[in-house]
Amino acid sequence: MTELAELYGPVADDIPLVGDLLATLGQDQQPLLGEILAYVFRTGGKRLRPALVLLSGKLGAYHRDRLVTLAASLEVVHTATLVHDDTIDQALTRRGLKTVSAVWDSKVAILTGDFLFAQSAELAARLDSVRIMSLLSETVMAMSTGELRQYVSTKEREIDESDYFLRITGKTAALFAMCCEGGAIASEQPDEQVAALRQFGVNLGLAFQIADDVLDFIGTEEELGKPAGSDFRQGTMTLPLILLAEELEPGDPLKTDIATGRNLERVVRRVRESGAVDTALRRADEYAAAAREALTVFPDHPAKGALLGLTDQVVRRSY
Amino acid sequence: MTELAELYGPVADDIPLVGDLLATLGQDQQPLLGEILAYVFRTGGKRLRPALVLLSGKLGAYHRDRLVTLAASLEVVHTATLVHDDTIDQALTRRGLKTVSAVWDSKVAILTGDFLFAQSAELAARLDSVRIMSLLSETVMAMSTGELRQYVSTKEREIDESDYFLRITGKTAALFAMCCEGGAIASEQPDEQVAALRQFGVNLGLAFQIADDVLDFIGTEEELGKPAGSDFRQGTMTLPLILLAEELEPGDPLKTDIATGRNLERVVRRVRESGAVDTALRRADEYAAAAREALTVFPDHPAKGALLGLTDQVVRRSY
Repeated sequence: MTELAELYGPVADDIPLVGDLLATLGQDQQPLLGEILAYVFRTGGKRLRPALVLLSGKLGAYHRDRLVTLAASLEVVHTATLVHDDTIDQALTRRGLKTVSAVWDSKVAILTGDFLFAQSAELAARLDSVRIMSLLSETVMAMSTGELRQYVSTKEREIDESDYFLRITGKTAALFAMCCEGGAIASEQPDEQVAALRQFGVNLGLAFQIADDVLDFIGTEEELGKPAGSDFRQGTMTLPLILLAEELEPGDPLKTDIATGRNLERVVRRVRESGAVDTALRRADEYAAAAREALTVFPDHPAKGALLGLTDQVVRRSY
Repeated sequence: MTELAELYGPVADDIPLVGDLLATLGQDQQPLLGEILAYVFRTGGKRLRPALVLLSGKLGAYHRDRLVTLAASLEVVHTATLVHDDTIDQALTRRGLKTVSAVWDSKVAILTGDFLFAQSAELAARLDSVRIMSLLSETVMAMSTGELRQYVSTKEREIDESDYFLRITGKTAALFAMCCEGGAIASEQPDEQVAALRQFGVNLGLAFQIADDVLDFIGTEEELGKPAGSDFRQGTMTLPLILLAEELEPGDPLKTDIATGRNLERVVRRVRESGAVDTALRRADEYAAAAREALTVFPDHPAKGALLGLTDQVVRRSY
């Protein structure tokens, strides 16, 4: 795996500043809250969203402090959604580490997520821009709507490609788009570039999520930190399965497996053996290409090069 | 009970505009979300927080649309906290109506609350004021910190008067303060008046919450919609019980009841028979007096009269 730090090129040195800012958030808080914030920000993670903010900002007037603050705000939004998602999914671990619900309980996790959403707004408010605050609130509305869509479709074990794209646009692409658009606004770029970076972000987010959903079928348990097919086991139908379901012959026993959620191993094997994985990855590549296309308005620049590099990385990554 | 509409005097006619705005929020949303929003805003409620925004605004330049929008934003914050609190408490009903967790489930309730917090920020952003957005984020941080404090103290069945005040300052008074301060800012009042209305709001919120906690002991099951002493049953020690506990003789069996959460009826009876109820209500009166005192910077005005009237109403109310 290519080191992501390497891909973040011109902003790699500033990424740790985001972590430094996050580390201050737990200070002078109510003791339990301070402890939880230290816990949720203890690991750096990939910091992909902060990198998108900073790289987008590099294409304009790079006000480092403002951009680092916005990057921290959006990493906090991401963290808030993870904390609530893990509570909703009753997940005990994420990437091998215990979730907030598991270390404490679901009540603490709900309140921590609420605090984090407000904390993200407090950080964003430091930029003194109503445009960014407004964008942030619309982004979080889109994200929670996307999660509600996923809830409904999971409950109904729904096979619906257009619903799938609405879901992932909300739950994943909306925040990627905000990172890029927000970075552009905070660096005073003209409207054309703001719109271009937003388009880049949306498409990168879609490519990222499709690749993630493919990995859930083709990754090994060791790579995934959980058995393959866990989305399916939870009832969430993702693109590889939707593509496969669309081409099944009448009477194929897999139809029953899909409708009932049974025979996980057979479902995973059939997805892997089918052309659905390649088709899904081609779709991811198409979104990655659309992301690259959006950047044609920019002249050559190291930050542009890094953003272009990310479009390959998010599709071809492994854990 | 005095009609609250009567107490809202000079803004009573504008309160329905808040409901009208809230009713638009569910339109053009994902179907389940639209249904839930219609459900949570179906009943008017007392609209006490919107009234505080509008009455505070009447003491400055009364920009009706801006103030109604802010009032709706803060009613949405309040609704978001109720939805999450009911999920945390696993409450099936609130004031006799089924909670979101009960009609749908806790997953839906978590996501709905998240959406509502973001929706409140989106409404507030319409005022185009970073100062108000910033205040909103700090208010929600204070509220979730207050709820976390309550969680900790409930878990430990804590008898601690200073912790009680920290808790209720966060969970209740912070939003009352924001309603009044926000109304003052949105109506372009000078700093002295903004600070005075904030002080009014904090003190009114403390008086309100103490009175609420007293009612939980002295109200009938019919008035409360649940058995008396339900805070105690959940492990939350409120002021009347804290005051009683502080004066118990060594060896009083009530000490064991309090520590173990047993013998609810005996605990309720002892609180009712003790002087703790009167002492707590006197404390509420003191805060109500401090709220009135904060308004001395304002000349006579119907809105001032209505705010003064509320200070009596929140302490002496019954359900």
